[in-house]
Amino acid sequence: MSRKIRVGIVGASGYAGVELVKLLSKHSGAELACVTSRSLAGTKVADNMPGLRHLLNPELEFVNSDPAKCAEMSDIDVWFLALPHGAAAEYARAIIEAGGKVIDLSADFRLHSLDIYRQYYNEEHKAPDLLEMGKYTIPELFPLNGDEKLIACAGCYPTSIQIPLTPLLREGIIDGERIVIDSYSGVSGAGKKASLDYAFCERNESAKAYGLIKHRHLSEIEEELSIAAGKTVVVQFNPHLAPMTRGIYTTITLPAKFEGVEKVYDVWNGYYAQKPFVNVLESGIYPDTLHVCGTNRCDISAAYDPRTKNLVICSVIDNLVKGASGQAVQIMNLIFGLGETSGLL
Amino acid sequence: MSRKIRVGIVGASGYAGVELVKLLSKHSGAELACVTSRSLAGTKVADNMPGLRHLLNPELEFVNSDPAKCAEMSDIDVWFLALPHGAAAEYARAIIEAGGKVIDLSADFRLHSLDIYRQYYNEEHKAPDLLEMGKYTIPELFPLNGDEKLIACAGCYPTSIQIPLTPLLREGIIDGERIVIDSYSGVSGAGKKASLDYAFCERNESAKAYGLIKHRHLSEIEEELSIAAGKTVVVQFNPHLAPMTRGIYTTITLPAKFEGVEKVYDVWNGYYAQKPFVNVLESGIYPDTLHVCGTNRCDISAAYDPRTKNLVICSVIDNLVKGASGQAVQIMNLIFGLGETSGLL
Amino acid sequence: MSRKIRVGIVGASGYAGVELVKLLSKHSGAELACVTSRSLAGTKVADNMPGLRHLLNPELEFVNSDPAKCAEMSDIDVWFLALPHGAAAEYARAIIEAGGKVIDLSADFRLHSLDIYRQYYNEEHKAPDLLEMGKYTIPELFPLNGDEKLIACAGCYPTSIQIPLTPLLREGIIDGERIVIDSYSGVSGAGKKASLDYAFCERNESAKAYGLIKHRHLSEIEEELSIAAGKTVVVQFNPHLAPMTRGIYTTITLPAKFEGVEKVYDVWNGYYAQKPFVNVLESGIYPDTLHVCGTNRCDISAAYDPRTKNLVICSVIDNLVKGASGQAVQIMNLIFGLGETSGLL
Amino acid sequence: MSRKIRVGIVGASGYAGVELVKLLSKHSGAELACVTSRSLAGTKVADNMPGLRHLLNPELEFVNSDPAKCAEMSDIDVWFLALPHGAAAEYARAIIEAGGKVIDLSADFRLHSLDIYRQYYNEEHKAPDLLEMGKYTIPELFPLNGDEKLIACAGCYPTSIQIPLTPLLREGIIDGERIVIDSYSGVSGAGKKASLDYAFCERNESAKAYGLIKHRHLSEIEEELSIAAGKTVVVQFNPHLAPMTRGIYTTITLPAKFEGVEKVYDVWNGYYAQKPFVNVLESGIYPDTLHVCGTNRCDISAAYDPRTKNLVICSVIDNLVKGASGQAVQIMNLIFGLGETSGLL
Repeated sequence: MSRKIRVGIVGASGYAGVELVKLLSKHSGAELACVTSRSLAGTKVADNMPGLRHLLNPELEFVNSDPAKCAEMSDIDVWFLALPHGAAAEYARAIIEAGGKVIDLSADFRLHSLDIYRQYYNEEHKAPDLLEMGKYTIPELFPLNGDEKLIACAGCYPTSIQIPLTPLLREGIIDGERIVIDSYSGVSGAGKKASLDYAFCERNESAKAYGLIKHRHLSEIEEELSIAAGKTVVVQFNPHLAPMTRGIYTTITLPAKFEGVEKVYDVWNGYYAQKPFVNVLESGIYPDTLHVCGTNRCDISAAYDPRTKNLVICSVIDNLVKGASGQAVQIMNLIFGLGETSGLL
Repeated sequence: MSRKIRVGIVGASGYAGVELVKLLSKHSGAELACVTSRSLAGTKVADNMPGLRHLLNPELEFVNSDPAKCAEMSDIDVWFLALPHGAAAEYARAIIEAGGKVIDLSADFRLHSLDIYRQYYNEEHKAPDLLEMGKYTIPELFPLNGDEKLIACAGCYPTSIQIPLTPLLREGIIDGERIVIDSYSGVSGAGKKASLDYAFCERNESAKAYGLIKHRHLSEIEEELSIAAGKTVVVQFNPHLAPMTRGIYTTITLPAKFEGVEKVYDVWNGYYAQKPFVNVLESGIYPDTLHVCGTNRCDISAAYDPRTKNLVICSVIDNLVKGASGQAVQIMNLIFGLGETSGLL
Repeated sequence: MSRKIRVGIVGASGYAGVELVKLLSKHSGAELACVTSRSLAGTKVADNMPGLRHLLNPELEFVNSDPAKCAEMSDIDVWFLALPHGAAAEYARAIIEAGGKVIDLSADFRLHSLDIYRQYYNEEHKAPDLLEMGKYTIPELFPLNGDEKLIACAGCYPTSIQIPLTPLLREGIIDGERIVIDSYSGVSGAGKKASLDYAFCERNESAKAYGLIKHRHLSEIEEELSIAAGKTVVVQFNPHLAPMTRGIYTTITLPAKFEGVEKVYDVWNGYYAQKPFVNVLESGIYPDTLHVCGTNRCDISAAYDPRTKNLVICSVIDNLVKGASGQAVQIMNLIFGLGETSGLL
Repeated sequence: MSRKIRVGIVGASGYAGVELVKLLSKHSGAELACVTSRSLAGTKVADNMPGLRHLLNPELEFVNSDPAKCAEMSDIDVWFLALPHGAAAEYARAIIEAGGKVIDLSADFRLHSLDIYRQYYNEEHKAPDLLEMGKYTIPELFPLNGDEKLIACAGCYPTSIQIPLTPLLREGIIDGERIVIDSYSGVSGAGKKASLDYAFCERNESAKAYGLIKHRHLSEIEEELSIAAGKTVVVQFNPHLAPMTRGIYTTITLPAKFEGVEKVYDVWNGYYAQKPFVNVLESGIYPDTLHVCGTNRCDISAAYDPRTKNLVICSVIDNLVKGASGQAVQIMNLIFGLGETSGLL
């Protein structure tokens, strides 16, 4: 490549934002051109991210940049939005209207239905006219052609769920009925917040369900699984917190359509054998969050239970990498024609 | 009570054994009369259990006592067996034949079928003639009359599962079909072992499934749920390890027979309102392992999902207390007519 | 005892306050008569402290009680103040003027010098006239006679430091020169705060010094060690945070006055052989915070290094028990003539 | 560089070995040519190191290679020895006699005195004639000229101690008298062992001193500090374990020769301002193990205490990276003329 991609990050002080700064500052094909943070504006990035000091331009400062100002920076090739939902939509609109490209890590462009957005996020969508332009992406499942303007990166739980399930639904190997999904997330999934709920002494030695019945990610999970199945899929999604910083463990139980796991593995191998970031483990070997921690990988395996005639599928990712920033960088690599694994191994 | 119960503990060096020593040494109605451990025989108990030094008779020593020797100690009112399966059966036989009482924490007398024992434990039962005498016990669900000779304490996962499910099955509030159980256990559930699998660096920051499809506790879970339901119940049981020392989190998804949670709570309140160690949390409040850590309590709650028409039930215990040693002491209290909560609050 | 001590707790929602509620609700000689918390006023204590539900009077509510109101409750035998410094002084004044007794867990009455208070706490003392009445207490070192009105419980770090050092200074076994103290505390030592600094993801996997050179506890440590030595003692105190909920590990290096540890152990045994909550471990056995977690114990040991001619002394406590609430209950036991270990084993 | 360095790793299954495999498999200038492990011989490396699957040649197998066999592989440019002391010496001899180069992570060639080796390691040295050839290395302090045959990588604790102290001793800014070093290490420092001492449930929530008075690393620390000072330096070294996987926190207290920290920082800046892996933090900012976790960095800072006239110096490293494998790769980079940071950012 003749020159480095110039990237901007909006909202660089949260956990996903820091991970983006880290990945992009190591990336040989990208250059951090603008990094925004309201709370840290005017301070040096290197001073606030001590773990990244030697990777960063020592002069790079956080700026407080509203949507309009970002839109004006026409020399930025792509913007990553690591913002809460709602806030992301406003930046996306300004940047796209000015001809820029956006890779959005928030939930703002993940859903296809404004109605579902309203139901799950309890507010009106800030840029409903852009919803259709938003390209929902897990690169292994939703190929990119390079001319995308607005990418909606899949959520962390949804990534861990769709990587194993979507191929099986698309190929009709499973039915989409009576799917039960139990997930445990590391505490970083809750974001970088000064909240007693996420205090060390409250989460250490604690496993706990939360958001049962109607977690926000459920909307995205069901929309996408329904598309994959070609019919409405309704699932039980039980999210929990585990006492660890990173990682998502997803265990999915569903009625098997066929005996054994052979057809499951055939489909998975067809989808993933050539994919660098999905690891199909043999049946009987269970994934471990520790093994994917700090990587952009998703490890999956399946077992068939002859007694219950269920499939049990396990899947792990690092919620901040494959579940957020790593996947976003993988998407940038693909859109700009860099190697898919560039900066991610 | 005129005199203290004299108790013996066989296998006092594992995590459940240590917890028994701890609970019984604090118990105002009991006296530790004999504590066995092959590996520690000849050493002072107080020297090996630094956390318990001031609770213990400083002269009390671990002894290496085979079944026959234990059986001879006729002044011991009750023996707790904290041994691996197989080993427990031999002690139980000797003690019972000599007229003693046994509270067994192992799996040896939990099952009703020798065949199932063989299938799940891969060996012949060591005392098949005693199987029928073994009284399977979770005190809130299986009342004691005080003349029991051989108690089989329920396993840790099974306790966390039966406390919420058994009343619902008995009363016909749920059907027993298509039950999916996901459980996460603290690492102490694996026992006190010099094994790389349970090394700090392998388990820290790691969530991981293990023993899917045919975990040993499944045999006990299904036997007991079937009895409660009056018909064969087959469940999907997905056990995992979480990076914490203690605690079990069990999340159960199953088809609801009725809309809402009212009937569930009515039955639970009927069973548990007067029970000191079961805490029925209101729907929407989820249990937390940290809240029961170090206690003999089981906290449960249920939610109804109108979209899936499923019930989602959550349950937590401390695997070493309500899941093992605390429950065993609760049983002793009830058999000997001490207060149920004696030594357990 | 003919009747239970009626106790009040002011500030019952922090970690030390919750530990007090826990200890006192289990205590056979005490009765929780009043529990205050501004943030939780009007709610049931049992609903906010799920781990304590079965120990508590289900009707007991948090109240919002200012100093005057507390002072009016003349049927309360003793008040525990689990408040920040400054706030405690105002409650203490009101209660004492009304004839009540106070056991204060804050720093307000620990120091003997108003000047030092000002220097280390950056504000004027709120009740300077009461400073002299305040009885600084670690019960093993500062005997109580029962007529105390205002007890200043020693701080957590200071307790872990004085238990090993004070007897040696008093008996002239060490000199008080060039003492270096490195301490690591569990995160609960920072209090129950919604602060990013104490968020799970910031403290997990993190060891970190903080407050070097002039930690607030240094004022108390030096005042008391100086009294013990009969001359000014100046120490280096290096506090750190370790990724655990509870526990303080204190390692003290100082020049030995005598070769070997014999004289050290002689003095320690003289002070502590009969004390239930201090455990003198033999030289070469090092204390472990895990062993004292949840107990009111302090474990200590010493080694002599013939190469450096230094003593190295290690000491551990649970910061919330022996370092705060357990010690406060021990003090109550002694003042009211209950057994020293009552409610603490 | 025209071709990749061909590297061999002996002992690739321990934590340092795995870290070497990880770093070298990502390294653009190196190629993993041979990886030995007795316990895993015959299995695929990728199957045993699930976190590294996509970085590795899928055909690469662990081999069981004795010293003679390694020596015969003349196409290997450099061997990393990640072996216990004693074992490393035999491989080093064979490889060096055959004309190969060795970067040894063990303690075998760190000491200059056979006598000290005997005292601290309780056995005779296996290759005393090679001791002199061994070049003790922390690259920032002991420059390499590229023709080294046998490198002795500094130990983990010694690296965290010498980086701050050695420049100050060499430049006479401190005296070398009465140095007190308290260090806390993550549990991976104890190696990958199936030992109850390092079991999750024994180390979780536990801080604990070990190896006081005469830890093996003390020999190396004192030898090297003495060389730096030009006179015998004797230190107090107090190592502990903290409940975390990685990281060393070292806190050093010593009498200041000058008031303030200015001279300290002048010397440090002279040594380290241009060094990519040493980060001099300003006085008052304390290092945090979490910030260097997974990096090859050492962060240091110093404070002066006007009351005690001591310097307090803090230093952090990741024990498996800058304390072991990362430093070894940095050394390879320098010897072979690759960029110092190659594969390490």
